[in-house]
Amino acid sequence: MSATTRNQTSIEVDTAVPTVTITREFDAPVALVFRAYTEPDLFQQWIGPRNRTFELQEFDCRTGGSYRYVHTSDGNEFGFHGSFHEVRPNELIVQTFTFEGFPDQVALEKLVLEDLGNGRTRLTATSLVDSFADRDAFVASGMETGVVEGYERLDEVLARL
Amino acid sequence: MSATTRNQTSIEVDTAVPTVTITREFDAPVALVFRAYTEPDLFQQWIGPRNRTFELQEFDCRTGGSYRYVHTSDGNEFGFHGSFHEVRPNELIVQTFTFEGFPDQVALEKLVLEDLGNGRTRLTATSLVDSFADRDAFVASGMETGVVEGYERLDEVLARL
Repeated sequence: MSATTRNQTSIEVDTAVPTVTITREFDAPVALVFRAYTEPDLFQQWIGPRNRTFELQEFDCRTGGSYRYVHTSDGNEFGFHGSFHEVRPNELIVQTFTFEGFPDQVALEKLVLEDLGNGRTRLTATSLVDSFADRDAFVASGMETGVVEGYERLDEVLARL
Repeated sequence: MSATTRNQTSIEVDTAVPTVTITREFDAPVALVFRAYTEPDLFQQWIGPRNRTFELQEFDCRTGGSYRYVHTSDGNEFGFHGSFHEVRPNELIVQTFTFEGFPDQVALEKLVLEDLGNGRTRLTATSLVDSFADRDAFVASGMETGVVEGYERLDEVLARL
């Protein structure tokens, strides 16, 4: 079984609460996955779909810190920003997230890392919003491509560490 | 009609999503209510129930800032912390909130201020969590006393400004 077929990305919505949950395993220890999420020079190498680069204008990944990154395409700027509510090393990142195209929509994101042993890690990322319509629109917006490709790029970053 | 009967605090839960929404009007213009929420020396004068003081260990109320405050009672410390995701002057504050007694529970809070004219303001504060059980436990925990008394203290702070 190749790493690609073994480490499938799962994206699931909840029926009771307006969340979407992404689950993904990685052939890398928890400490490296945590570094790839929290160190700006590593995060920038994998976030988002292929053939797109994000400029990290701010990236202070600690409890109480904040971030903003921007993608520029055909002269249009697409900005994203949020705050790091809690960063617990090798375990948990809770942050807020807004795509500035919809400045009043805020997601609360919870990233949990689990040590699977044998140098493998399971990541569970849950996004909570305040309406099912917004949640469903987000899932239907093509987020899957960016998520799946981003994690493939993250595989590549982790293989180099 | 006295200010007390006119400015009732309403606390309502939603059936579709795990939110609780507090609505309250104030006999003060939006700009003063915003100041009382964002300036640490004012905020400290009214937050929480009567006969209780909170020490603001950190209070950087701007987009990307964070806060922590602590109440000490009988030698026990009760801490609260969070991040300010967005602070839009006289209009909106979006922040996270955790009572450190339950460190894995995080609420996403949205405070909206509306100018009612004649120097009056309506405040709508919505807290979103990821489970109905946690939302209902929060409402049942006696939060109403702290909220109602806090807003009465806020009335008093606003009257002095």
